[in-house]
Amino acid sequence: MLKLFYAPSSSALAAHIALEEAEASYELAKIDLAADEQRRPEYLKINPNGRVPALATEHGFLSENPAILAYIAQSFPKARLAPLGDAFAFARMQAFNNYLSSTVHVAHSHKRRAARWADDPVAITDMRRKVPETMAACFEVIENAMFVGPWAMGGDFTVADGYLFTLARWLEQDDVDPKRFPKVLEHRNRMAERASVKKIIVHHAR
Amino acid sequence: MLKLFYAPSSSALAAHIALEEAEASYELAKIDLAADEQRRPEYLKINPNGRVPALATEHGFLSENPAILAYIAQSFPKARLAPLGDAFAFARMQAFNNYLSSTVHVAHSHKRRAARWADDPVAITDMRRKVPETMAACFEVIENAMFVGPWAMGGDFTVADGYLFTLARWLEQDDVDPKRFPKVLEHRNRMAERASVKKIIVHHAR
Repeated sequence: MLKLFYAPSSSALAAHIALEEAEASYELAKIDLAADEQRRPEYLKINPNGRVPALATEHGFLSENPAILAYIAQSFPKARLAPLGDAFAFARMQAFNNYLSSTVHVAHSHKRRAARWADDPVAITDMRRKVPETMAACFEVIENAMFVGPWAMGGDFTVADGYLFTLARWLEQDDVDPKRFPKVLEHRNRMAERASVKKIIVHHAR
Repeated sequence: MLKLFYAPSSSALAAHIALEEAEASYELAKIDLAADEQRRPEYLKINPNGRVPALATEHGFLSENPAILAYIAQSFPKARLAPLGDAFAFARMQAFNNYLSSTVHVAHSHKRRAARWADDPVAITDMRRKVPETMAACFEVIENAMFVGPWAMGGDFTVADGYLFTLARWLEQDDVDPKRFPKVLEHRNRMAERASVKKIIVHHAR
């Protein structure tokens, strides 16, 4: 059976939504980031990068949201969570997910995880201070250029929607007013009412 | 015809290698990062994130290396640049590529692109100072846990090999001694002798 390694308020929510949407059989394994469980040797065997999410499968472990999301979509084709028959549309979705991973999530991480990239307290403070600006810039790109509507990639719901929802939930804590991004906000509200999200969101309380 | 938007010494080399390995017909469009061409309105229509690489296809534009690399592999299946018939092996490759994109490339970017995430000159200096440490930590994970051998993902060459080669070329400029990572260094040397790389590397001089 699949097992999702997750932490509350982390980006693992995206993979969790995908598993629910796929109607997959899975179990959850909670990783306590406050206790640094993600750096323990037993977890580093699961994901040597020491991050959540990770997904245990019958074949082995997977990490990195864009890879996990695509794997879930490919493994449960009946759920139609990605444009599997269209290499270009699939790549567009992967590009969107990769933007969320490598630019948006990274911008957000400079608030609480600035110590990954600096040591000087002056630097840490300045990196935290800039997060509202960088996160707003990211969501301007999503709002004005990437979001197709009504779902992130167009007419069909995909795994990208759960990922966008996951990161859009961070706007307020990053001191960005989500009302600046009406399409993203409407999407976020619609996602919050989706059955899959309502069922699992209790595991992801901040 | 495919058109690759690239810049010398950028991660676009990874996509360029994939196009050569695929024996694709393509043309090159050089983006002058020093002149900030990647921020011009005409380029933002190609990639609203203002980064290279981007790939123009008959269907539209793609950005983000992991998405572009997978698209090239899927579009040229005879070149066997990815484990296309095995969803788990494909996802493992995507996870590796996504790690390169969202963790390794991001670590590197704190040297010359620190101003993305901070303004204070003290912060910029401290972020640059830490890059050798973060890049070395990334390559320790690759060397000891991710690299399978003889190619990145195991017995078969994949698009991940060109991407790893691209980022491993940055070690010296990030003040990391590549001899600390013998598997990565041997792979880098082997990649440098590959016909595809020898043909195109002139476009990627630093």
